[in-house]
Amino acid sequence: MAQSSSLTHLDASGAANMVDVSAKPATERTAVAVGRVVMKPETLAIVRAGDAKKGDVLGTARLAGIMAAKRTHELIPLCHPLLLTKVAVDLTPDDGLPGVRVSATVKVSGQTGVEMEALTAVSVACLTVYDMVKAVDRGMRIEAIHLVEKTGGASGPYRAP
Amino acid sequence: MAQSSSLTHLDASGAANMVDVSAKPATERTAVAVGRVVMKPETLAIVRAGDAKKGDVLGTARLAGIMAAKRTHELIPLCHPLLLTKVAVDLTPDDGLPGVRVSATVKVSGQTGVEMEALTAVSVACLTVYDMVKAVDRGMRIEAIHLVEKTGGASGPYRAP
Amino acid sequence: MAQSSSLTHLDASGAANMVDVSAKPATERTAVAVGRVVMKPETLAIVRAGDAKKGDVLGTARLAGIMAAKRTHELIPLCHPLLLTKVAVDLTPDDGLPGVRVSATVKVSGQTGVEMEALTAVSVACLTVYDMVKAVDRGMRIEAIHLVEKTGGASGPYRAP
Amino acid sequence: MAQSSSLTHLDASGAANMVDVSAKPATERTAVAVGRVVMKPETLAIVRAGDAKKGDVLGTARLAGIMAAKRTHELIPLCHPLLLTKVAVDLTPDDGLPGVRVSATVKVSGQTGVEMEALTAVSVACLTVYDMVKAVDRGMRIEAIHLVEKTGGASGPYRAP
Amino acid sequence: MAQSSSLTHLDASGAANMVDVSAKPATERTAVAVGRVVMKPETLAIVRAGDAKKGDVLGTARLAGIMAAKRTHELIPLCHPLLLTKVAVDLTPDDGLPGVRVSATVKVSGQTGVEMEALTAVSVACLTVYDMVKAVDRGMRIEAIHLVEKTGGASGPYRAP
Amino acid sequence: MAQSSSLTHLDASGAANMVDVSAKPATERTAVAVGRVVMKPETLAIVRAGDAKKGDVLGTARLAGIMAAKRTHELIPLCHPLLLTKVAVDLTPDDGLPGVRVSATVKVSGQTGVEMEALTAVSVACLTVYDMVKAVDRGMRIEAIHLVEKTGGASGPYRAP
Repeated sequence: MAQSSSLTHLDASGAANMVDVSAKPATERTAVAVGRVVMKPETLAIVRAGDAKKGDVLGTARLAGIMAAKRTHELIPLCHPLLLTKVAVDLTPDDGLPGVRVSATVKVSGQTGVEMEALTAVSVACLTVYDMVKAVDRGMRIEAIHLVEKTGGASGPYRAP
Repeated sequence: MAQSSSLTHLDASGAANMVDVSAKPATERTAVAVGRVVMKPETLAIVRAGDAKKGDVLGTARLAGIMAAKRTHELIPLCHPLLLTKVAVDLTPDDGLPGVRVSATVKVSGQTGVEMEALTAVSVACLTVYDMVKAVDRGMRIEAIHLVEKTGGASGPYRAP
Repeated sequence: MAQSSSLTHLDASGAANMVDVSAKPATERTAVAVGRVVMKPETLAIVRAGDAKKGDVLGTARLAGIMAAKRTHELIPLCHPLLLTKVAVDLTPDDGLPGVRVSATVKVSGQTGVEMEALTAVSVACLTVYDMVKAVDRGMRIEAIHLVEKTGGASGPYRAP
Repeated sequence: MAQSSSLTHLDASGAANMVDVSAKPATERTAVAVGRVVMKPETLAIVRAGDAKKGDVLGTARLAGIMAAKRTHELIPLCHPLLLTKVAVDLTPDDGLPGVRVSATVKVSGQTGVEMEALTAVSVACLTVYDMVKAVDRGMRIEAIHLVEKTGGASGPYRAP
Repeated sequence: MAQSSSLTHLDASGAANMVDVSAKPATERTAVAVGRVVMKPETLAIVRAGDAKKGDVLGTARLAGIMAAKRTHELIPLCHPLLLTKVAVDLTPDDGLPGVRVSATVKVSGQTGVEMEALTAVSVACLTVYDMVKAVDRGMRIEAIHLVEKTGGASGPYRAP
Repeated sequence: MAQSSSLTHLDASGAANMVDVSAKPATERTAVAVGRVVMKPETLAIVRAGDAKKGDVLGTARLAGIMAAKRTHELIPLCHPLLLTKVAVDLTPDDGLPGVRVSATVKVSGQTGVEMEALTAVSVACLTVYDMVKAVDRGMRIEAIHLVEKTGGASGPYRAP
């Protein structure tokens, strides 16, 4: 079936394998992903206060996201290892949610894209926010993790509608 | 400020540290978390077809989630290492989303809870679904990752409303 | 002694170190390794049945092998880190053994070969087969792990006799 | 089918999961595994000579095996994390093979056995021997990795016939 | 020679192995280690300024130290894995050095001590300070990493003179 | 403030992030770092004796340093992953300290330097010496870890005064 053959992780017999990218040229690639942690307003107030004093909730989550991006190929079974040249993670409190918005930008010069690295950074940063504040709010939700933009690679640029 | 003192990861001066749980008794603890990957109907059809043939998309994501649960304390900076006694990850295609529902159940006999392990298993399983199908659908979204239930520990049971 | 100087991991004084490959050109390199898990016929029947239903024994071992290949440089003290461009692991039940045949193919464009990555993938896939079935057969044996073929690099191609 | 239900990693639906050991008592458990690397006589002479001078081939392999035992639960997808209380790896040159015999003894007080830890230690020690000497002999084979003995746990002691 | 037998990592034949602690009782153990990064006064001024604004140099180093403590058994070949119940890392700018003083306190209920975990936390926190400021001062030195105090275990308490 | 902008890990807002090196050319880079473990003369005698027999204390520390260099980007939050082409670690007993001198040389062809890899190798080698001998001397001190020399990269060569 034509569509199924697009699942490039599956070989002819349907078995999962890490696809061969050796014939692809190394090009500059970037990916931006976002997500958010939605919480009670009073939980967000605590995050902000903590941030005002020491930056710890958001600062800890930022570092956790950056460090996780570097380990994406260990976590996602069929991801290729890559020499990331940039990982930036941003966390912004937003009263409108209320909660924390997270975004990650990743760059590489390589043979595969860095969407998974950006999405992993966002996910682990969100998980870390949850961990830092869970003692006061177990009902938080991680929402809307998705790819915003990617550039580079044979499939061309992508921008979320 | 009273509320802020509830952020148990922050010490008196506001600096992040791994809290002392040495005085807590080791008790049986469980946590269940869920989340979902929302995709186009035709993407879900491919996941299902793959599953019908070899189970690879869902099977790969299940293993990735299980393995990630065991590495939670490496990913989330202030999580304690734990000897998990059970990790089960379940993925179910759902036409209503359309997409894949993910749930994880984790057990431990220990001094801290396993909410983060269950949430991490769900997150990495969702990321792996994304990775396996991203070639045909970059617009997928990971949604509604949250804790459903926890038991054990001094704070007592929790069940999401 | 002339031969001893061929042990390139040992420096002049005999101390183990990671050899300098900085002067080597990056070339396309591949390696294929194989091995097998020998078991009772009734154990193999269970593996096959499991495979018929959900592909779990062989599918789990395949993923474990792939993921292990990416961590070869963490496991083998003097291996260089490499950006693997392909890892494929194949498991085939074989009544003649009886047991499971495992093969791994690894590619890289780099300054050192990927024999160890292919051998590590085979070894960990075999170990995982053992783990998945050990409850019914503790007498299984992992046999004949060896390099079948390598290409690329200054030492030229190798093919097992 | 009755036998299939013995594959404790597979749940009712056949999906692989980390089995629940929370109801098992923690008991003293040991496992001993062995294996060997078979090589040309002249390769073994080099290993011996290296050993005579600095102990590096065998010493490096011993440490690699010990360190790998501690990471078994990261490598084998459904293994539980364990607090190993002892890991000993032994390598002995044997002209009769010719080659190197490897054995590993692992102990734990825990809810699951340490067969996989012992087998993983042997496998990675064998791989490291291969890596250290492969420049002079690509035809080496890793043979006969198997469990020799285990004690502790509900299934009782096992000793290879 | 009597003294040599005190090197508990070396077995009778002198080969390094992870010692058997299975017969030791699990007791409460703590360790405190310290160290310092000595730098130019103007470098310290930058660290302080960064700290005043966002806490990043010291906050990043604190987290790196905590996370490293959890990975001690992966880094130090013969260390046993442990379920750390507390890791606290403290960094204090000190004009008298000039530089940053680092201390780490680690707790466990286990069969071996946590000296190495405390020393590893200090070392990696110091390395991270270096990394964060090296662009302006490559001449920094990490000095005087040592154990200040340990409690618990058969060898009794230790306090640095 | 002009100086503060030199802290390249901090972005405009002061938040820590992994800096973008994508525009930097890949060049040959080397770094040499040193450090030492200072101990009682009788402790050093034991280290030497151990070395004379099996090389274990120094050999174990050498391997631990090499393996740690490869994991630098996992330990130091804002370090980039790199494909190290050489890691050599040297340990020399020195009666003048008394103690053990440690040096590490690291090479890469890449977009960032390898100072942190060399310093990490030295640190972990020193920690391992401590671990191997701590049973007889808890008062050892790790001293004077610093960069001796670096070459390559836009900032040009550095040599410690």
